[in-house]
Amino acid sequence: MPASAIRKLVPFADAAKAEGVKVYHLNVGAPDIKSPDCAFDAVVDKCKGLHHLSYTNSAGLIELREAMVEKYYKKVGIDISVGDLLIDVAGSEAFAVAMQIAAGPGEEIIVIEPFYTNYQTFAFLNGITLKAVHTDIESGFKVPAISEFEKILTPRTRAILISNPCNPSGKLFTRSEMLELGKFCREHDLFLISDEVYREFCYTDEPYFSAMNIPGCEQNVILVDSVSKRYNLCGARIGCIVSRNKDVMAAAMKFAQSRLCPPVLGQWAAMGALDTPWSYFDDVKAEYIRRRDCAVEMLNAIPGVFAPKPMGAFYTIARLPVDNAESFAKWMLTEFRVDHHTVMVTPATSFYRTPGIVNQVRIAYVLEVPQLRTAMDILAQGLAAYPGRR
Amino acid sequence: MPASAIRKLVPFADAAKAEGVKVYHLNVGAPDIKSPDCAFDAVVDKCKGLHHLSYTNSAGLIELREAMVEKYYKKVGIDISVGDLLIDVAGSEAFAVAMQIAAGPGEEIIVIEPFYTNYQTFAFLNGITLKAVHTDIESGFKVPAISEFEKILTPRTRAILISNPCNPSGKLFTRSEMLELGKFCREHDLFLISDEVYREFCYTDEPYFSAMNIPGCEQNVILVDSVSKRYNLCGARIGCIVSRNKDVMAAAMKFAQSRLCPPVLGQWAAMGALDTPWSYFDDVKAEYIRRRDCAVEMLNAIPGVFAPKPMGAFYTIARLPVDNAESFAKWMLTEFRVDHHTVMVTPATSFYRTPGIVNQVRIAYVLEVPQLRTAMDILAQGLAAYPGRR
Repeated sequence: MPASAIRKLVPFADAAKAEGVKVYHLNVGAPDIKSPDCAFDAVVDKCKGLHHLSYTNSAGLIELREAMVEKYYKKVGIDISVGDLLIDVAGSEAFAVAMQIAAGPGEEIIVIEPFYTNYQTFAFLNGITLKAVHTDIESGFKVPAISEFEKILTPRTRAILISNPCNPSGKLFTRSEMLELGKFCREHDLFLISDEVYREFCYTDEPYFSAMNIPGCEQNVILVDSVSKRYNLCGARIGCIVSRNKDVMAAAMKFAQSRLCPPVLGQWAAMGALDTPWSYFDDVKAEYIRRRDCAVEMLNAIPGVFAPKPMGAFYTIARLPVDNAESFAKWMLTEFRVDHHTVMVTPATSFYRTPGIVNQVRIAYVLEVPQLRTAMDILAQGLAAYPGRR
Repeated sequence: MPASAIRKLVPFADAAKAEGVKVYHLNVGAPDIKSPDCAFDAVVDKCKGLHHLSYTNSAGLIELREAMVEKYYKKVGIDISVGDLLIDVAGSEAFAVAMQIAAGPGEEIIVIEPFYTNYQTFAFLNGITLKAVHTDIESGFKVPAISEFEKILTPRTRAILISNPCNPSGKLFTRSEMLELGKFCREHDLFLISDEVYREFCYTDEPYFSAMNIPGCEQNVILVDSVSKRYNLCGARIGCIVSRNKDVMAAAMKFAQSRLCPPVLGQWAAMGALDTPWSYFDDVKAEYIRRRDCAVEMLNAIPGVFAPKPMGAFYTIARLPVDNAESFAKWMLTEFRVDHHTVMVTPATSFYRTPGIVNQVRIAYVLEVPQLRTAMDILAQGLAAYPGRR
């Protein structure tokens, strides 16, 4: 099993910090936005005078499932009933389970590259082969014609797996792209696994179009979701798997039973978070638009750098004028400092199945604008000084 | 994937409850003992005024890992360093990861039957074959001679997996049994995966002998542990995997990275729980001895029933005078009532690989003595009235 690309550089960052260097983390999607207080208030209320902390139903607390359906999914226009939803240990468990339900050892899942690397980890662990449809940085990662999907379809293909908005590219799928994918999945009897954990982070005026709302795809779609990014509760480890396909939910329940139950304290936080006023998301979105605009403008102002403007999530992929993005990222951590400061970025190579894409990085714009400016300045200076510049 | 044996009867229990019937749950290891307050106080302290809930290190909070080593493992005589321990999402994740580290698809792990059914679930999910050494209810589940292990050893055998004290049998392994198993694993280059989540629940005067203390087995032993039963924090979902084998810990870290981090609120509860005074365990143990003695005496007083006296955990296996324990368990839930009360037990068939063991049940003595007495009375009356009595 390959080591996580994102974590591979961590020892170099740790060593830099041990030397007293401040490292700006543009490498991980760990934002600094405040969580809604109601999430923590709910945990405090439940913990006060608590007798003991027992298991919940393997599918999660019924109160939480009901509240998610009523207070969240209805509001975002996803019409489901409680039986269509099961609480998982964050998005990580939800997509791992979705992949295992969709495909067995020796079978194939189509992903759109660049894609989230842990999809590859879980495919590897379960003997599933990922086949990738390429999307290009030059086009802003536009989804190609459906004929590209047909080219890699085999009798062993079981599903298409997308992340929308996409980690790592920030690509937001259009309604027509989603309808096309849905049609393809229906025609070829494939699951469409849609990882929508960044649903709140969309920067167009169009309403978000969930895979759950593709007409006629009720039996095909498996939704992967999480409270991690929505409320900045990454540490709660609460997500869910949603499907109107009863066989999928029955299988998801068997997986759920094998690990007994999802974390209960986190379930309480998720329950409390459902009382978050809707204005919270507007504020967060406005903040991310400021950060995105700052990051993308400053990146494109650096000679030789190109970054498309992402319409969702809080990442962008940037093409750098370097020989090798991993060597550059390591060099920044081990060699380059501006007044004892440096920057950490994630090389994008492992987000692609296509070999040879060695000059791209993923930038997470998760810092406040003043810090982001400083980080971008350091990145620009690093690129100017890097010995492997091309 | 087979449905969980323990959960298969749940719909019948739910239906009985919906009719207004009170069901005494002797079927699940969900005890009613009070958790130490310090666990919940720690969570409340951390949550007050919290800004947001971010990821921790994939291996868990370093403060928690250090405190576990110093405040817990040192005290119970297990001498490890922080690098030998990684926080997992409860014992469930820890043994699933341990099994996957030890064996790949097509390889074999030896278990001692009766065994915890979720071992079979994770073996199935990963293409691992479980081979079982039989232990007998008549002998109190005594571990047989090592020649029984040799008989089922093949070139594909990678590990022995035990639970000590054992769920479901309550068997506590003796020091000499552990030394024998260790010697066998060393000689045949096998991992010894030791699930010790019930370590605090031992009812002999002998000190507990952990697999971690088998001399010369440092590279073989993988310990699976959890705070769930120790502090009655089953819902926190915090456990750990422990090994002095550096390759094992490196592999465990890769698995840990793939699911990002363990639940943070639960990690705080576990951290707080480490301040539990040692007298807590003495009180809990005294309570369980009372419950065990009540359960085992009352079981053996029922005509045709035999239950050995367990020396650990909070389960016992009982042989019942019935045609089929699953039919009996279902009949109790659907047909039999004493003043609108009934009892739920777990059929033991799925704890065995050996076919045909159809007249045993697992009894969890997790109720207070007065309730346990009532439950045992109802069980006795049910057995007298059951049409499939043998």
